[in-house]
Amino acid sequence: MSRLVFKRFSSTVTIKSAPSKAHLHAILPDSTFPHGYQLTGIHAGVKKVAGVPDLGIILSTSKHPTSAAACFTRNAFKAAPVVVSEDVLKWNEGRARAIVVNSGCANAVTGKQGVDDAWAMAKATNALLPQPGDNETLVMSTGVIGHTLPISKIIAGIQLQAKESSRTLGSDFTAWERTAQAFMTTDTFPKLRSRIFRLNGREYRMAGMDKGAGMIHPDMGPAGTTFSGNRQLHATLLGCILTDAAISPRSLQSALTYAVDRSFNSISVDGDMSTNDTIIVLANGAAAPLVDSNVREIDEETDKDSYEVFKTELTEFAKDLAKLVVRDGEGATKFVTVTVRGAPTYKDAHNIASRISTSALVKTALYGEDANWGRILAATGSIPLTTPSPYAAPPTINPLTVSVTFIPADGSAPLPVLINGEPENVDEVRAKEILQHEDFEILVDLGMGGGPETEAKYWTCDFSYEYVRINGDYRS
Amino acid sequence: MSRLVFKRFSSTVTIKSAPSKAHLHAILPDSTFPHGYQLTGIHAGVKKVAGVPDLGIILSTSKHPTSAAACFTRNAFKAAPVVVSEDVLKWNEGRARAIVVNSGCANAVTGKQGVDDAWAMAKATNALLPQPGDNETLVMSTGVIGHTLPISKIIAGIQLQAKESSRTLGSDFTAWERTAQAFMTTDTFPKLRSRIFRLNGREYRMAGMDKGAGMIHPDMGPAGTTFSGNRQLHATLLGCILTDAAISPRSLQSALTYAVDRSFNSISVDGDMSTNDTIIVLANGAAAPLVDSNVREIDEETDKDSYEVFKTELTEFAKDLAKLVVRDGEGATKFVTVTVRGAPTYKDAHNIASRISTSALVKTALYGEDANWGRILAATGSIPLTTPSPYAAPPTINPLTVSVTFIPADGSAPLPVLINGEPENVDEVRAKEILQHEDFEILVDLGMGGGPETEAKYWTCDFSYEYVRINGDYRS
Repeated sequence: MSRLVFKRFSSTVTIKSAPSKAHLHAILPDSTFPHGYQLTGIHAGVKKVAGVPDLGIILSTSKHPTSAAACFTRNAFKAAPVVVSEDVLKWNEGRARAIVVNSGCANAVTGKQGVDDAWAMAKATNALLPQPGDNETLVMSTGVIGHTLPISKIIAGIQLQAKESSRTLGSDFTAWERTAQAFMTTDTFPKLRSRIFRLNGREYRMAGMDKGAGMIHPDMGPAGTTFSGNRQLHATLLGCILTDAAISPRSLQSALTYAVDRSFNSISVDGDMSTNDTIIVLANGAAAPLVDSNVREIDEETDKDSYEVFKTELTEFAKDLAKLVVRDGEGATKFVTVTVRGAPTYKDAHNIASRISTSALVKTALYGEDANWGRILAATGSIPLTTPSPYAAPPTINPLTVSVTFIPADGSAPLPVLINGEPENVDEVRAKEILQHEDFEILVDLGMGGGPETEAKYWTCDFSYEYVRINGDYRS
Repeated sequence: MSRLVFKRFSSTVTIKSAPSKAHLHAILPDSTFPHGYQLTGIHAGVKKVAGVPDLGIILSTSKHPTSAAACFTRNAFKAAPVVVSEDVLKWNEGRARAIVVNSGCANAVTGKQGVDDAWAMAKATNALLPQPGDNETLVMSTGVIGHTLPISKIIAGIQLQAKESSRTLGSDFTAWERTAQAFMTTDTFPKLRSRIFRLNGREYRMAGMDKGAGMIHPDMGPAGTTFSGNRQLHATLLGCILTDAAISPRSLQSALTYAVDRSFNSISVDGDMSTNDTIIVLANGAAAPLVDSNVREIDEETDKDSYEVFKTELTEFAKDLAKLVVRDGEGATKFVTVTVRGAPTYKDAHNIASRISTSALVKTALYGEDANWGRILAATGSIPLTTPSPYAAPPTINPLTVSVTFIPADGSAPLPVLINGEPENVDEVRAKEILQHEDFEILVDLGMGGGPETEAKYWTCDFSYEYVRINGDYRS
């Protein structure tokens, strides 16, 4: 961690630069990717800098039907690509074979023109599919709000892929990497991960890409759903997960909704929810050998065991992708896990973890490497618990059962700072030692009962000078 | 506004220093203060720097009964002075004659010792009253959380006032000013205001002091109340208003609750709610001439007209005091009024104004003097509207009826940036001109009907490098 010292009025300030993130880009070129996908990332001209990928195209070329599911922002100002993708999923009843994404312009608050442009992107991409029929393409955009897309450049970029001579679609590492690059805005590295999992003795693959560094505090749900009740909501986060497993559309949506709540909806960079947040998953069944002409799709009703395995794999993979966003949080120098347990319900634990994770005072203290548990408590107590019924008073936190512990990530001894409402005589040297690490965990135990199923985790970063610099300058 | 330029990585950053706040301290020594109060601010030794006032004592010496009312933090971790003051108000049924306040230590999360200490402060102060009886003293503390008070120093400080030789209690300007100084923590100037008002042809006075610069986003209610439903809550704000009017305890509480909702509960510096937030009002009837032995107290039931006049005066005065806190917000370079109108209810308008006022992205854009209305919209749409009944779906914002306008404070023409969901072709030069002012207003009209009574105002500041510096270093 390099340091830069400068004079500010009469005080000397140490600015910590964000740690190098090069190691996070360490996905190996020999990674295994899911079968049956062709993809590319190209420079279409949405961004000004020549050569920078700003348009990503993903096609499923599987011979089996491809299931699709998505979670979209719950913001009242849903961007045009969100509106269009919701429509596509609904009309196709959970079947879709392609995704088109652009960075550099969010196509949000762009009226009727915006919706027309999003449809035009979808249709042009759809024409690239093997045996194209009615539209089966989902759309995502990220970037500045309130500007219309340079749609002719985008359409021209898409149409280049139709010609043999200019076609860059592929399935090798470079194709995946360039597609991941096309998602990026203020991200400092492309976010691409893959994993292999086994189900009923057979091997499947999933790969995922996402983007996001600021305006990150998603609250996403299936198309048409309303707010989850997580009121301190708030990013542009875009992502997609592609797998060669086969699963029914309805079960794919159930698994994704569960996974997103415990991954992308449990991260915060700045507490601001975007108009464009979207996570899409495609499952194309291409892992099945071609001789197996009747692939049976996993379904939560008919094969609960397989469904649970898939759901768990998807959730863990989604957490990995979500954490990358926090690691790359604008100006972030810390990666902090906030765990809340002993709450009456999972939702209460999740709400409190969210509140701690978005507190400007907690986040500046993390930047200052100060084990300021008073701020953590103030945040914990600042939101009401949920009411079990509209006619009952909500339960209240008993300060005398609350404990707070700092847990280092290196496996050394945890440091309790408050036990059952009584401040510990904290070893400040040890506290500083833990907080100087890039990674650590804050554990808040409310001591109100509630088993392991009510425990919630949130992943957050600190609030730095660099965050102010990025967001005081950048128009998002 | 001085500017300081420094190099940060490869980019050049301009740091704007907070504007000088000397002019805000411009309360004139010949101000008129309410009759019947004796007060002082002294250095008791809670703070390390010698001579800095850290203990304030306020006594009502009126011959009439003194009514008291208060609004306290709704945080689950109420500090010991809050618990004690709630008890005193309850047992005395809204009568109290003294206030004792210390800065430098919040006496929060301090267990039984904390409560004993708060009681000890109250009782020692109570002994200073003319004809002291059962305890009629309210307590407030602000400063670091999790440390116990240096109680023997505080008691010694209070007891100095009992001796004629060391007594500094008075009613002149210096007494008021030193008391206001005793409230200060990271405040850059003491916050003291006074006003004269007329009621039924007679002249009355009120004076008020408050403190707060960070951990400011109060949600306060009368003793024993639960959350207001303002979920983005979150400061230490301490204040007191002293008047020589006579009003019944019950009506004083009603008027204060109304006033606090529209003043102190409508400001945000950093979105963090404190464990200590407290606003106390005393009304001692000392304006009445001594010959008038049966002063009739204003009461909302028996004399609604007088009550309404008093309530309006109190509300406007509370707004003045509340705004001083935002002006002195940690690192603040801007003072921004956020107005939301056209919402279905006042609560919805207040919730949205609060969300905009706490958005890190909006606040960094304000610091960057960037008319980034996309961030304002994203914040506006990120919280659900309230549900009229537990069984009805909440109404939703229609993006096509929403308008956003920047209004300069100098009376020049407002700048609409979004009209009925359609982005305007904004004159960026004019936008920059407005945002370069220290003061301006952001008006969001949801266009969902709702008359003037549903309009809500919030006062907020920007998010600067200086905020990060203050809170990365200071343990509050």
